[in-house]
Amino acid sequence: MSMTETTGAGGTSKSTVTLDALQTPCLLLDEARLRANVDRMKAHLAGLGVAFRPHLKTAKSLDVARVAMSAPEGPAMVSTLREAEHLAAGGVRDLIYGVGIAPAKLGRVQGIRAEGANLTVVLDSAEQALAVAACSRATGDPIPALIEVDADGHRAGVAPGDAEALRAIGTILHEAGALRGVLLHAGDSYAIEQDPEALAQAAETERRAAVLAAQTLRSAGLPCPVVSVGSTPTARYARDLTGVTEVRAGVFMIGDLFQAGIGSHAVDDIALSVLATVIGHQRAKGWIVTDAGWMALSRDRGTARQRVDQGYGVVCDLDRRPYPDLIVRDANQEHGIVALRPGSAADLPDLAIGARLRILPNHACATGAQHDRYHVLDGSGGVGAIWHRINGW
Amino acid sequence: MSMTETTGAGGTSKSTVTLDALQTPCLLLDEARLRANVDRMKAHLAGLGVAFRPHLKTAKSLDVARVAMSAPEGPAMVSTLREAEHLAAGGVRDLIYGVGIAPAKLGRVQGIRAEGANLTVVLDSAEQALAVAACSRATGDPIPALIEVDADGHRAGVAPGDAEALRAIGTILHEAGALRGVLLHAGDSYAIEQDPEALAQAAETERRAAVLAAQTLRSAGLPCPVVSVGSTPTARYARDLTGVTEVRAGVFMIGDLFQAGIGSHAVDDIALSVLATVIGHQRAKGWIVTDAGWMALSRDRGTARQRVDQGYGVVCDLDRRPYPDLIVRDANQEHGIVALRPGSAADLPDLAIGARLRILPNHACATGAQHDRYHVLDGSGGVGAIWHRINGW
Repeated sequence: MSMTETTGAGGTSKSTVTLDALQTPCLLLDEARLRANVDRMKAHLAGLGVAFRPHLKTAKSLDVARVAMSAPEGPAMVSTLREAEHLAAGGVRDLIYGVGIAPAKLGRVQGIRAEGANLTVVLDSAEQALAVAACSRATGDPIPALIEVDADGHRAGVAPGDAEALRAIGTILHEAGALRGVLLHAGDSYAIEQDPEALAQAAETERRAAVLAAQTLRSAGLPCPVVSVGSTPTARYARDLTGVTEVRAGVFMIGDLFQAGIGSHAVDDIALSVLATVIGHQRAKGWIVTDAGWMALSRDRGTARQRVDQGYGVVCDLDRRPYPDLIVRDANQEHGIVALRPGSAADLPDLAIGARLRILPNHACATGAQHDRYHVLDGSGGVGAIWHRINGW
Repeated sequence: MSMTETTGAGGTSKSTVTLDALQTPCLLLDEARLRANVDRMKAHLAGLGVAFRPHLKTAKSLDVARVAMSAPEGPAMVSTLREAEHLAAGGVRDLIYGVGIAPAKLGRVQGIRAEGANLTVVLDSAEQALAVAACSRATGDPIPALIEVDADGHRAGVAPGDAEALRAIGTILHEAGALRGVLLHAGDSYAIEQDPEALAQAAETERRAAVLAAQTLRSAGLPCPVVSVGSTPTARYARDLTGVTEVRAGVFMIGDLFQAGIGSHAVDDIALSVLATVIGHQRAKGWIVTDAGWMALSRDRGTARQRVDQGYGVVCDLDRRPYPDLIVRDANQEHGIVALRPGSAADLPDLAIGARLRILPNHACATGAQHDRYHVLDGSGGVGAIWHRINGW
């Protein structure tokens, strides 16, 4: 292939490879849709007067980070220390590692900080705070820490009304010069579908919990300069973010069928697809067999619990127009079973062996993780660049 | 780390790293269990008088291939051309690529063959056969091809009684010197649980379909030297393989909770686990939060449709002893929610922040694919080597 490969240089080549020339299955990223999704979120959050910290857990790419970040130095959010190391090596200077810190990872955190990136950690217990404080004192480099607060019972975090725990953790951190504020993630917003009022309420619940926790720290004489909230649905539907200093979101920039089911964006905004080839037919059953199985699409079946079950993905032509009612109905490791939705009156398209399809994913974070690179579509509908993904830990 | 890294050298180092010294999450492979699983299958198939062709779609590793294969030259089976290229570069000479061939991949197939590996392809249509024949004639190198036959309506393949299609495809291949035989995969055996009689019957159904298809070819004067069948459950429970020349199986060598649910092996035989660290508690809910979410475990929930739903995996201590009734009840991208099974009367273990766990996977093929390497456990319970995995296409 003659297209340019980059590992963060962000450049695109003038030479373009057509989709027919790629080996399948592979991952396609539509740069124009990516940029439009980012611009829409930035404008929305700017209107609410808060900073935007893109979460790179979906994209896992320095090239995408540079599209999403406000500046080459950040801020940005990561889900693994490997992402942090990669972004830091690429010049990003303001990072939060969003998974509760394990004490055994603090050495690696300090290594990233020593290279010049201001990496902040997240925690929700006194045990973790004591480990951060001890490490901060031992090295003379206070590791900035945010106390995770549980917005909605979704996963982790201190209850926003648990003043005793907030003050205890906050005090341990503050005495080591490490307390930076609070962080929340309204993960339960993922269970809402096509209900702007309920999504706005989820955003308001997240905001109120954040403000309550921040006030609890401040009323105890503890600093809380950072009040960080975020999830793609609540970022999209928040109407007022008074008291919040920054919003994090990630999957919105790439998009997927699950977020479209929630109403975070339209199906047409999805910037990611898997390129597949037809490798067989089972005509009596109405099946078209492709070479994109769950290894290429991921095992994620998130839309199975939404109103519209999209199977393992929506099947489109090379111009990304969905075929009527055509989905990936089932998947084996390297085989996709493409068929009409149950009960559909549409006609199965006549697709020859070797024909190419594009499949929109259920969950961009999961589908992306099955691949080590993006084939980046330029305006011509061909691939003009390769952007590498940073998987693993 | 001081352990040896190999990319197929198969060597293990004398220096061992303890599980407490590894960064988490990461993938552990128990070499003794792997070898025992392979030895058991080899002995069973040798007793049935058939050759064994290990399928590398689960392991995706030259080191594991060398444990599983009868000889360093093979035979072996692969699920991607990338696996084929890697094994061929490592000296494996007899390979089948098990996914229906797309015409656009034949150039790559010929490249692998030109390097000295006898790579065979699989197909189930006249269109594919014509492409293989044309490519074979154009280069003067007949590409060996197996006709895929549908044992049980599971996925792909010609119906075993469709003599017309078998003869048409067979004739196209034979005239180009490319016909090698038939290949079947009894994928529907995966729906059977703990029923040796039904599993033996599935194996017999697969054998009969194979023999019928082979006889159809031979009675038309076409050669059919290879009669290849296989799946982990049918390989395990086959009682008679008269007329079959080789058996393929892959996941058995590593094992998982889904295959244990079927009865292909015991839970104690599972050679794969994910090492995780406790990063939080939600005590009011009975949750222990770990750093092994679905990114480390995969989104596979195969046991959800079996009698015993194992969540995202069974939770064990560092010596791989399962905690009573403790499973990964839910998972986010980088968070695992560990809790007791619904209705359990067991006690939640008291696990400190930083404590380490080992999680047995639902599906070894899917969990393995989330990682780029195995940390290989030696007899001491520590890690003595790194074996690299070949993901992607």
